[in-house]
This record gives sequence, structure tokens and C-alpha cells, in this order.
Amino acid sequence: MRVGPGSLAIATWEFSRGGTECCFRLLQQGTSPLDAVTAGIQAVEVDPTVTSVGYGGLPNSSGELELDAAITDGTRFGAVLALRGFRSAIGIARGVLEHSVHTALAGTGAVRFAQEVLGERPLPDPDLLTEHAVQRLSEYRSGTFETRPSESHDTVGMIAVRNDGGIAAGCATSGYPFKYPGRVGDSPLPGGGLFCDPSVGAAVATGDGDELMRLCPTHLIVELMRNGLDPQKACEEAIQRVQSYRERTGRVCRGAFIAVRSDSVAWGAHATHEGFVVALADDQNTNGASLIPIVVPEARGRQWRRICS
Amino acid sequence: MRVGPGSLAIATWEFSRGGTECCFRLLQQGTSPLDAVTAGIQAVEVDPTVTSVGYGGLPNSSGELELDAAITDGTRFGAVLALRGFRSAIGIARGVLEHSVHTALAGTGAVRFAQEVLGERPLPDPDLLTEHAVQRLSEYRSGTFETRPSESHDTVGMIAVRNDGGIAAGCATSGYPFKYPGRVGDSPLPGGGLFCDPSVGAAVATGDGDELMRLCPTHLIVELMRNGLDPQKACEEAIQRVQSYRERTGRVCRGAFIAVRSDSVAWGAHATHEGFVVALADDQNTNGASLIPIVVPEARGRQWRRICS
Repeated sequence: MRVGPGSLAIATWEFSRGGTECCFRLLQQGTSPLDAVTAGIQAVEVDPTVTSVGYGGLPNSSGELELDAAITDGTRFGAVLALRGFRSAIGIARGVLEHSVHTALAGTGAVRFAQEVLGERPLPDPDLLTEHAVQRLSEYRSGTFETRPSESHDTVGMIAVRNDGGIAAGCATSGYPFKYPGRVGDSPLPGGGLFCDPSVGAAVATGDGDELMRLCPTHLIVELMRNGLDPQKACEEAIQRVQSYRERTGRVCRGAFIAVRSDSVAWGAHATHEGFVVALADDQNTNGASLIPIVVPEARGRQWRRICS
Repeated sequence: MRVGPGSLAIATWEFSRGGTECCFRLLQQGTSPLDAVTAGIQAVEVDPTVTSVGYGGLPNSSGELELDAAITDGTRFGAVLALRGFRSAIGIARGVLEHSVHTALAGTGAVRFAQEVLGERPLPDPDLLTEHAVQRLSEYRSGTFETRPSESHDTVGMIAVRNDGGIAAGCATSGYPFKYPGRVGDSPLPGGGLFCDPSVGAAVATGDGDELMRLCPTHLIVELMRNGLDPQKACEEAIQRVQSYRERTGRVCRGAFIAVRSDSVAWGAHATHEGFVVALADDQNTNGASLIPIVVPEARGRQWRRICS
């Protein structure tokens, strides 16, 4: 799909609408894409009604909220993996980008960095789970947990481009509900949940992170755009690659991607299943962010059900 | 460089010679590439004279040995990130590949998996550091630590192809000496330290992992081979990409790659610096593995110095 040159904020799923608006408003005020994406994703993370990202997310199998997040402008990159003790992880990923010689910090090391370098204080467990998450945990423990189609989906992946140049991408999730402790999905990984090259563009992913991460789909999309494909065609080819992987391995792998060129002339999105929705805010949209359902003719009734990546 | 069709084991750096021989011997005996690479890398990890992989590796800034490792046959993938308490990580990564619904486990969760699912017992800290590592830690703590060019380098990345089909790749490291606790480099990440598509081939990486992981170089190499480039040209183009990244960002980033086609007709290797060495065992080499220095004409005296990825 084509938009005029100008600023643009775009993200995965309905629940990112508010965060996308927040991101776009900041871009309009002259904020850097990196700051705008950080704030936009944080808005999603702290929203207690989003049950797969940050606070509100369902915990791991030990009942602990454990978050993955990453942010990049294609030059710098910061990520935290399996981070416990916080309601939001994107600011700590951003702290890694700004203040660490490293790119990714995991587990207790990431918590230590948040305390020691950023001065953040981890919260006690009871402050990390919403009433809904506690209820779902109790269902999990009694063996009655079932996913609900009405619940919010998966990862927030967000891309921002500013009309005077600059692009950034970020990704955050609480991961699969009741995942094994320490599980890291695609969200915080370059080429997994996000990839950005400022001279080409950026891509973000949502879906079955354990599978998607093996395919480096967002790196693939940016490479395809580098080789001349438009973002829509690049996303479609990446989805084709997921389909081939499904056929070759017999594994379940749902995925959806968004791609944007760094000149913001065009964006694209595609998915393996029906039901994927993009939140978009741009200069042509004066009433906040639009929700755009992504039509997948070849999915023929394959409906996306709640998972987390 | 071209070899005849047949079995082949190849790995990064001189210190992987014994592991490469072990890997190739197993291939000849009919062992699967996945098993052969696991055993070959384990041989390097448990070698106390290798100061950047497994036991013998230098610890993190808190004095703890912390390992990254991953293994894949292009269909399955298992990784452990920032794993403490073990002298070798590749077997636990392999355990993730075999027994987890997830792909990557980090930190205390990975330790728990090793205990709970694999029945492995973590060792106390004094059993994890060699005398040499303790000596170097004491230098680090007193501010007198300096890297020595004579010390062994970086990551073990290993690829195995069997003449009757099948390919696997693995990667393991103890990471940068005295890294921040929890630091995860490129080694355990798909597209970072390793990538494998059985229909195309595989690639492994060694170098400045914090930087390399942002570029997904091993995924790039396999994509380039998919598009028709031979392994040597694919590695050279990936090195070009690293050089562009260095120029664009002004960051230090040393890298070296090995690539193999899955039909084992050809392998290639290239590096940003002089001094990279490949260990190769194949059917034409009856006296164990050869060490092959990789000539990099365009590096003009830029010498690789000890780092870890």
C-alpha cells in the first residue's frame, strides 16, 4: 500500500492503536523515531488490558512476568531477554542501546543492568501481575487454562519514519503464556522480531516466535527491499518462506509482518492467517490511528488464534 | 574453494582442529551431522587450553563462566544463552533442540531446564574456572588485564555435511572476557553465529558478536547462496556488508565467516582482518584436519587480535 512521503507510525495488532498514535504525535512534534517508538511501545506495555505485552501479560510457568524487548535505528541496537521484575522492558532495552558496550542482556544480568546503570528498581511479584493474569495463572495451575479468541494477540512490533529522515523499529512481548522460564522468542532478536537498515527500511514480526526466529524473516524482508522489492511484495515473499518452512518441517508456524521503506513512500503487511490487523498513523490520518485488516486471500479461512511470540 | 562431493567438517580457528577431526571421524562412521557437530564442539568446549569457549574460557565481570551455544540442522534449532554452572553448553543446546517446545532458553531458566529435563547438575564456581582463568580474573580485578595475541580466539563455529545427505551447524563461546553478566552475543542466534537451510547450505560466524548480530550475516550468506552465489563469493559479500557497516557507523567490527553448500561441493571463508584460520577435515585429507589460513588481500596488514564473540 502506498502513502505520500511524510511521517508514519505503524504497528502490529489492534491493541497497539493507542501506542501508534502516541508514537506518531511525538514524530509530529519533532521527536526522534527512536524516542517515538520507545514511548509508543511503552504505552502498550503499561496498558493492563493487553495480555501479551508488558504489564497485563500472562506469566511464565513459574508465575513470573518475563519480558523480551528490543529497539533499533539500524545503527544502534539494544535488547533485553527474559527480563523479570518490570512492567515494561522497552525502556531498559533502550538503556542497553544507549549505555552498554553490548547489544543484548538476558535474565538476572539484564535486571542488574537496569538497577546498576539505569537506576531502575525491580518490583515485587505481586505488583507485576494484573488480577486477570492471576486468574489465568490459577486456571493454568488447575489445568483449566484455554486460550480465548477474544483476548489480545502477541507481540507489539512498531516502526516509525519521520518526514525529514530517520527510522526506528521496536518490539516487545511477554511471550507465550506459561512459557518455560528463560524462554526467549523472536521479538528481541535482530532479524527475528525486528530489523532496520536506515538506507533501506525496517520490518517487524509477530507470530510463533519459537519458529519464526529460525527463519530471520525481518532480515529477509529488508534484504528483499534492498534488492528492489516493494514492502508489500517483500512481506508476501517472507510469508511464502514461512509456508515453505511449514510444509518442509510439518510444524505449526503462524506469522505476520509489517515492512516500511525508510523514505516512507510505501509500507506493506502480510500474514499466514486471516485476522491480522495493523495500526497506522500518518499525515493523511488526522483522527488518530486507523486499524487496517490485512486481507490474505490465500489463507482461505485459516483464522489467527491467540498466541504470543 | 572446491572439494569433491563427500563428507566434510569445517570450523573456525586453530583451536577447533581436534574438534573438527572428531566431528569428521563421526561422520565417516555414519553418525548424523547433528551428533557429529555436537561432539566436535563439545571437544573444543571441554579443552581447558581454549580460553574463549567452554571450560578454559574467561569469566564475566562477576567472575562467573557464562556460556552461549546453539545447534541446528536447519529444521530444528536449540540454543542456550548466558548459561552458568556448566563447562560445556552445546549438549544443553542440543537438549533444547530435542526436548523443548521452545528454541532458546536464557539464564536461570536454561540452568533449570538442564537440571529438570536433562538431569544435568550445575558445578560450583571453583570447578568452572581453570587456573589460567583465575589468574586472568585476578589481573582484571587489579586493572592489569591485557589481551594477548598468542591466546586463542573467539567462537567455535562448526559445519558438518555427510556424503549421503544431511547438514548441521553449531556455535559456542564463553563470550567477551569480563563481559557484563547476562550479555548475549551473536553465537547462539539464528542468522548471527549460525544459519542453516538444508536445501541450500550453512554458515557460521566469529568476531565482534555485539556488532555482528545486528547484521544477521550468516542468514545473509545462506540467502546469497540460495540466489546462486558460491560460498566463497557469499562470504566475501557478507564481509563487504560488515565493511559498509563499519564505515557507516564508525564502529569497530571484526568478523570472519565460513559457508558450505549442503551438497558439499564447495566451501568458502572470508574475514575483515588477516589472521583468520579454518580447520578442515574431508575425504581428501587422510591425516586429520588441515589448518588453512584465510588470505584477505584487501585487509592490507589489518591483523586480527584476540577478541571473543
